[in-house]
Amino acid sequence: VPVDGTTLTLNPATRPAPAYDIIIRSGVSADAGPLIATVAPASRYAVLAPAPVAALHAEHLLASIRAAGGHAELFTFPDGESAKTRATWSDLTDRMLAAGYGRDTAVVALGGGVAGDLAGFVAATYMRGVPVVQVPTTLLAMIDASVGGKTGIDVAAGKNLVGAFHQPALVLMDPALLRTLPVDHLRAGLAEAIKHGAILDADYFDWIARHAGELLAGDAALMTRLVARSVELKAAVVAEDPLEHGRRAILNFGHTVGHALEHASGYTMLHGFAVAAGMVAEAEAGEAAGITASGTASRLADTLRACGLPTHAGTFDVDGLLAAMSLDKKARGGTPRFALLQHVGGCAQAAGGTWTHALPHNALAAALRHVAGAR
Amino acid sequence: VPVDGTTLTLNPATRPAPAYDIIIRSGVSADAGPLIATVAPASRYAVLAPAPVAALHAEHLLASIRAAGGHAELFTFPDGESAKTRATWSDLTDRMLAAGYGRDTAVVALGGGVAGDLAGFVAATYMRGVPVVQVPTTLLAMIDASVGGKTGIDVAAGKNLVGAFHQPALVLMDPALLRTLPVDHLRAGLAEAIKHGAILDADYFDWIARHAGELLAGDAALMTRLVARSVELKAAVVAEDPLEHGRRAILNFGHTVGHALEHASGYTMLHGFAVAAGMVAEAEAGEAAGITASGTASRLADTLRACGLPTHAGTFDVDGLLAAMSLDKKARGGTPRFALLQHVGGCAQAAGGTWTHALPHNALAAALRHVAGAR
Repeated sequence: VPVDGTTLTLNPATRPAPAYDIIIRSGVSADAGPLIATVAPASRYAVLAPAPVAALHAEHLLASIRAAGGHAELFTFPDGESAKTRATWSDLTDRMLAAGYGRDTAVVALGGGVAGDLAGFVAATYMRGVPVVQVPTTLLAMIDASVGGKTGIDVAAGKNLVGAFHQPALVLMDPALLRTLPVDHLRAGLAEAIKHGAILDADYFDWIARHAGELLAGDAALMTRLVARSVELKAAVVAEDPLEHGRRAILNFGHTVGHALEHASGYTMLHGFAVAAGMVAEAEAGEAAGITASGTASRLADTLRACGLPTHAGTFDVDGLLAAMSLDKKARGGTPRFALLQHVGGCAQAAGGTWTHALPHNALAAALRHVAGAR
Repeated sequence: VPVDGTTLTLNPATRPAPAYDIIIRSGVSADAGPLIATVAPASRYAVLAPAPVAALHAEHLLASIRAAGGHAELFTFPDGESAKTRATWSDLTDRMLAAGYGRDTAVVALGGGVAGDLAGFVAATYMRGVPVVQVPTTLLAMIDASVGGKTGIDVAAGKNLVGAFHQPALVLMDPALLRTLPVDHLRAGLAEAIKHGAILDADYFDWIARHAGELLAGDAALMTRLVARSVELKAAVVAEDPLEHGRRAILNFGHTVGHALEHASGYTMLHGFAVAAGMVAEAEAGEAAGITASGTASRLADTLRACGLPTHAGTFDVDGLLAAMSLDKKARGGTPRFALLQHVGGCAQAAGGTWTHALPHNALAAALRHVAGAR
């Protein structure tokens, strides 16, 4: 070493996150034990679930893990988006520590999107990261939250502003679990499926519109097909851009406005309902900006209505929505950015190769007044 | 899709963590601005530092970032291990959110090991991860905490039990900053340097013993050589096993006992002092178990004493220490594991190819009584 110093280069031989299976099969949750034991061998399994979900499904899952020779315990937390906080994350972590869970632990996230995000963040930060298996119990969590490795919690400034990328070791989707789901939650899930069609596959978009009635009535075979196609579309985008450096941003179509609506509602609005109105607003603003083909917003609104989804979100203060959007994670220098359709079935790429766009203030304000202003 | 379901495999194209530079040069902190702007271009830089460190070094660093065209602000927090909590992490995150920091942020961690771990964890979890640049200001942080991507906070159950791996974008080590460091903190840093020699390089171990006096007197050229050699040794181990699946565990020599001593002291003991006594205990127990060459513990104790480091940690309850170790992150099924020397300059591999060992209870208890029992 020369007396005045040196520069060393550290090249950490980190491996890419490994591939993982997403198993979509009616009844698969009854086989969870051996499947989990194979991909996530661990001394102890912590099953994390909201209390009402645990009451319906935890017994079943714990028994399957124990039958496969695993030591498993249940840790419950309160239901709802309002529980997706640092306080719940701390409490779950501390209870696992007090119960003696070590680094040789795997977490099983059982529940909807909140459970997946929250339990995923517990796993991501427990002793610098332990494996997580996602077992989603809502349609929204199956086709959206449980795939792609996003974990996080909400803070006062907004949703998901604290979190980590932590890819699951396995995702088990049992459409039979959807039988206990309230119809509004089925509708909320369909909003994300419609989004998948809108951004990537016009035929799928039309298929959902045609089968809306049967899907809402709980047709098991159609529901399995819907989950499989949505996951296939989402997984292809995530595989190509796991950390959202580029094209993965298209999955945020409808979400810049949608998150602002959820925030303004104090998180009483279902995520899928907010995204439904958000997609209409972003399509209208995209049309006004000359980015989205004209007629797109009305075709979108028709399909949403066929699934019983609102295209008007209720009455909100438009300036408040605009302020919330400037804090969105995609914002740059305080200016909100939007994933926008080119037409139903495809997204518009922006200048510079990115997949998010700024929007003229007037176009955005008019669209917000339309979906969330006084009627 | 068959009616009864399907399995999809998601193969996320995550890239390995990129290589990063560790620049060791007296005065390098004056050039921080352009160096940081090159490797971590960002709209805004959040400099996170404990208040006393900020008073000494922040002005200088902020000016350099601003002169390079960056927007930079200082966020301070209380000094000491007792500030490395969820509360401080939450507070720093919320202040950055309130100040409008978006995803296009980079964090600069300025300070000792606590600052690096805490600010690193803020960066790891801010909007699912933003880049961090480490600017360590203590010898311990230079040769240990700032290299390798470990971040975390302490909780009631123990140190660093919550955290994440988050490799820095750049590490700037300015040995000139050590001029303001109290001599006990220099000694604490030397304990980790002695550990590097003990586990990897007997010549370096002897070199430290020979130059202890000059190093403690602040000889700048020798200090630069010490930092460079320790970082070189540590970086090679980290590069090969960044997530501590295997051989990286050898860096924990002295730390299973050391962490238990820190915990028992209520974190009033300097980390390096706890590790010094921990190394002696683990070498003695390793000798008793027939894993470590006899005479190793006494050679280690001689070198530690030459650097003014204690080989007896004070009087503690041995059963309490044993209980704390069973919660160590390396523990398996509640049994503590130890990285052990084969001799000065090399570690012992255990059966099955791992680098951690269980120890017979009697050997461990005797060694603990020797370094931390009543005298």
